[in-house]
Amino acid sequence: MRHKLYYSPGACSLASHIALEEAGADFEAVRVDLTQPRAPEFLAVNPQGKVPAILVGDRVVTEGPAILGYVARAHPDAGLLPADEVGAAQAAGLVAWCSSTVHVAFARVFRAERIAPAPHDAAVRDAAMAALPAMFGELEAIFARGQWALGDRYSIADGYPFVFWRWARHIELDLGSYRHWQQHTRRMLDRPAVQRAVEREGLHAADWIEARAG
Amino acid sequence: MRHKLYYSPGACSLASHIALEEAGADFEAVRVDLTQPRAPEFLAVNPQGKVPAILVGDRVVTEGPAILGYVARAHPDAGLLPADEVGAAQAAGLVAWCSSTVHVAFARVFRAERIAPAPHDAAVRDAAMAALPAMFGELEAIFARGQWALGDRYSIADGYPFVFWRWARHIELDLGSYRHWQQHTRRMLDRPAVQRAVEREGLHAADWIEARAG
Repeated sequence: MRHKLYYSPGACSLASHIALEEAGADFEAVRVDLTQPRAPEFLAVNPQGKVPAILVGDRVVTEGPAILGYVARAHPDAGLLPADEVGAAQAAGLVAWCSSTVHVAFARVFRAERIAPAPHDAAVRDAAMAALPAMFGELEAIFARGQWALGDRYSIADGYPFVFWRWARHIELDLGSYRHWQQHTRRMLDRPAVQRAVEREGLHAADWIEARAG
Repeated sequence: MRHKLYYSPGACSLASHIALEEAGADFEAVRVDLTQPRAPEFLAVNPQGKVPAILVGDRVVTEGPAILGYVARAHPDAGLLPADEVGAAQAAGLVAWCSSTVHVAFARVFRAERIAPAPHDAAVRDAAMAALPAMFGELEAIFARGQWALGDRYSIADGYPFVFWRWARHIELDLGSYRHWQQHTRRMLDRPAVQRAVEREGLHAADWIEARAG
């Protein structure tokens, strides 16, 4: 089955992009420029104009958590979800938290003016900046328990935290106390599938981690 | 398998509660009072202190979308998700949008002070109130296309919109132009499983819809 992923470089769609690479899926990646009016072709796929969206044949799936679950279940040999339904649901729970709590808090930093108009947007941004470290602490605790989000196995739940690390650097929060999360970021950058998605989006490992000495 | 659902009356956990009833699941419902400090027993289950959370044996699943997906997949005979993975992912996409977009907008109304401290919280609340009608319009369009969220079949995607209708009444937004969504709410109230969950939470049909004349 041929897939067509609509993404914006470095957006949360990168998690879906990575999952497609990890799954060995047959897919085409279509870049969407979120700074421009959306092309009619893309609005026909997703009237909300958001990424990620994926075409599977002529059917559309939207929302990152749904796309991640679909990619894992449509490519079971890739082992991107635990085979038992409780384990799969725990992975989905972590993805859902990343989407509806962590991503939403970042959005209040990046686009505070959508939450409250000026001059109130500065207070929104400040409060979100103050709220993020507690969430980062939860991610740090997760990666202190195991090398991947689910512990000893890589899964679709590893993509969002990788995306978030780059965003967190971008807003210049101090990340010095998240050593295990940083190690997870390095492990992600070592994966060939992650490297392919990062490169296709025109990004670079240095956007995440400074080059290692030597 | 015995399940233990932690819920708060009328919260988004009602969608999970309804799904368990629809599935004919073996479960116990445990009320959590969100206005009080969380009981140690509950914090041991979900350190974040949020509902819904579900115990499956001794394993915990958190986040509404993950619980809904689990309930549907663990009880396939109930037919709460399309059998094909693209259809299931479209249902999951709708659930994810309800959770990460619509619920989040309601939260900015209900708990604006968490988004920005006074006096800025009023601007947050006003902007969220102004943003909700576009989302309600999307729900109305969905229910104009078919009697259930997925069209002609009931699924786990029907619970959140039902919860939202009551919330929307609570904040006194004008709902007069959402005739199809209102009809969906009536259809939900006619379902025995919905009635059982509503009653167990100590709620009443009149919280959603005025009694019909005659």
